[in-house]
Amino acid sequence: MDPHNIVIQLVIILVAARIFGELALFLKAPAVIGEMVAGIVLGPSVLAWIGISDPINLLAQIGIILLLFEVGLESDINKLGSAGKKATVVAIGGVILPFASGYLISYYLFDLSFLSSLFIGSTLTATSIGITLRVLKDLKQHNSHEGQIVIGAAVLDDIIGIIILSILFEFATTGIVELESVGKVFLYISLFFLLAPFAAKIMSHTIMKWDERTSISGLIPSTIVAVILFFAWLAYRVGAPSLLGGFTAGLAISRQFFFPFASFLRTYNGFSNNVERQMKPIIGLFTPMFFVAIGLSLDLKSINWSSPTIWLLTSSIFIVAVIGKMLSGFLLNNETLKSKFAIGTSMVPRGEVGLIFANVGITSGAITNDVYASLILVITMTTIFIPFGLRFVFGLKERRFLK
Amino acid sequence: MDPHNIVIQLVIILVAARIFGELALFLKAPAVIGEMVAGIVLGPSVLAWIGISDPINLLAQIGIILLLFEVGLESDINKLGSAGKKATVVAIGGVILPFASGYLISYYLFDLSFLSSLFIGSTLTATSIGITLRVLKDLKQHNSHEGQIVIGAAVLDDIIGIIILSILFEFATTGIVELESVGKVFLYISLFFLLAPFAAKIMSHTIMKWDERTSISGLIPSTIVAVILFFAWLAYRVGAPSLLGGFTAGLAISRQFFFPFASFLRTYNGFSNNVERQMKPIIGLFTPMFFVAIGLSLDLKSINWSSPTIWLLTSSIFIVAVIGKMLSGFLLNNETLKSKFAIGTSMVPRGEVGLIFANVGITSGAITNDVYASLILVITMTTIFIPFGLRFVFGLKERRFLK
Repeated sequence: MDPHNIVIQLVIILVAARIFGELALFLKAPAVIGEMVAGIVLGPSVLAWIGISDPINLLAQIGIILLLFEVGLESDINKLGSAGKKATVVAIGGVILPFASGYLISYYLFDLSFLSSLFIGSTLTATSIGITLRVLKDLKQHNSHEGQIVIGAAVLDDIIGIIILSILFEFATTGIVELESVGKVFLYISLFFLLAPFAAKIMSHTIMKWDERTSISGLIPSTIVAVILFFAWLAYRVGAPSLLGGFTAGLAISRQFFFPFASFLRTYNGFSNNVERQMKPIIGLFTPMFFVAIGLSLDLKSINWSSPTIWLLTSSIFIVAVIGKMLSGFLLNNETLKSKFAIGTSMVPRGEVGLIFANVGITSGAITNDVYASLILVITMTTIFIPFGLRFVFGLKERRFLK
Repeated sequence: MDPHNIVIQLVIILVAARIFGELALFLKAPAVIGEMVAGIVLGPSVLAWIGISDPINLLAQIGIILLLFEVGLESDINKLGSAGKKATVVAIGGVILPFASGYLISYYLFDLSFLSSLFIGSTLTATSIGITLRVLKDLKQHNSHEGQIVIGAAVLDDIIGIIILSILFEFATTGIVELESVGKVFLYISLFFLLAPFAAKIMSHTIMKWDERTSISGLIPSTIVAVILFFAWLAYRVGAPSLLGGFTAGLAISRQFFFPFASFLRTYNGFSNNVERQMKPIIGLFTPMFFVAIGLSLDLKSINWSSPTIWLLTSSIFIVAVIGKMLSGFLLNNETLKSKFAIGTSMVPRGEVGLIFANVGITSGAITNDVYASLILVITMTTIFIPFGLRFVFGLKERRFLK
């Protein structure tokens, strides 16, 4: 293959992602939606200029691993702790309700396969931290009481979502659902989750010490990317999706994370800041490629739009996706009705993790093209419409305080 | 192809490049030599763990394009102007002498083909700005009179070297040497050199204005990389090697570069600094992959080491490579003997551009595996041994001043 063809494809992907991202923002939708639309336009659905080749697939995979690294790096375990029990209730409720209802309607109402129904349910579990945080910040609500609970819950259901994905991934690749296999995956992942942060911390500590002495530039970007990709590969080897490794590496390197019994490994804020500053441009370069690749992998032409099933499926999943998360806010005691409503609404946007679920589903063959399209539509709808809902609810609430 | 295999290969490449780079530095050799050795060890010559696949080749190509972007970004046209005529004399002398002598001995003494001899001569033309600058800085000589001439000459012979490479590249890919083709390539490249910086400047100006307004992060890394890769692709389309495009983009974005007739396009130092700061981690991530890939593409096992020809060829080219550049210092008037000697010695190290010549030569089939190995050995030798020579000469000179 001529690398120059791929080079110009990369140029088109990067520029289109940016332009469509800005356009989305201009239309008050999140940028990530624009990036997916860029992929839809460039891919088989519209122009058919770019297909998914090995190099582009690799760059997209690195992009999502790096994004999860950033989520891990920014996850604040202390914040989760302080929002405490309430965040946990919202998170668990917000995982179980959409998962169960998504699974049930898919399996019983739409007669989809067991695996396919599991994928649909799971896609609905994880709230998009990125989108939720952005909207809360825009509304200056991210430090409010409700904001803290929502952020804590979103971090937690991301972690739960990723664990569910790990198990589903095993199911999808082996094709069967065995309790032994579930147990094994769970054991591997638990071991990974227990040991990987420790190993990643030792590595980042070594890099920090190394960085103080080296006279060759570029230590941090090359070695930190190597550590992230190493844990991504390791996660894949133990049966989890590779992005779990990226998340773990991020968690371990973040300034909030340390071991009480290994304080000698403490990295300094200066180092975490340095890693963050140097990794940001790399993450900014790779991440859009994943979302464009999502669009490239969608073939809207191959979907039978005249069949009512796809419209019914999409709207049913959408309703379940919204109500399931909304109800999670109402599981709380000692909150005003409007607070419950605000918290529930904030949990609705699905984003990156949901897209990853859908992507794993289609690449492993667990879901059909039609279901994939439905899921992408639902994720897009929660992401586009809910920011407006949030503005409305928090707007209401403010007016109440002003009275 | 499973992307996870490539992911773990990338981890090994990044870590090995770093460890061998540090090792080289510890042994007082430039880090770039260590990176090449890492490739030799991982590749078919020793362990045979990693081969060159499409994705790795792409990343290596992006690495060298980004390195040349950095060279362009750091090239100071004003500095070249102030070092003036003397730098030009050294540069032109330092291109013609090694080119002619390298060509002549290859063609007449070693009976190599016309194209092969041209490649050998050309590989010897460009001084390594990177290595020369590093050594001059170590000796605190980069702001001395001789240092200024050397830097100016090194920038200039890099540009001349790249133009020669563009023509050779056309020869190597079409297989014939036609005057018409030379003229066409020269015209294309001249047009490219005239218009591309202007276009790149307009693009970087647009990005600067855009950056002031956007609220999505990651604008600079993704769009600047897109601009660089676009010009790399364009350069390839007009018949030049793609890295010429990277160099041009760097030149256009550098703070020293502006058009007298288009002062409205002036970018501000703040923007250039911002671009440099955000691009550095990306360049640091990709660049080592190119040098490791050079090592991966070498198969030392396939070379007939018992034949005396390879040893004769290597040592002849090495002698010509050293003497050709040394003499260029003696073309100057009004300089002391020791200054001439210091300038000549400083011009000896070949590096990135020489490696690129050799690489284009082998991938286009213009040179054999044996000649490729010889060239790599010669480049390595000039790079390893000359820093010691420079230290010796500048040491002599200082002692003279102390007397």
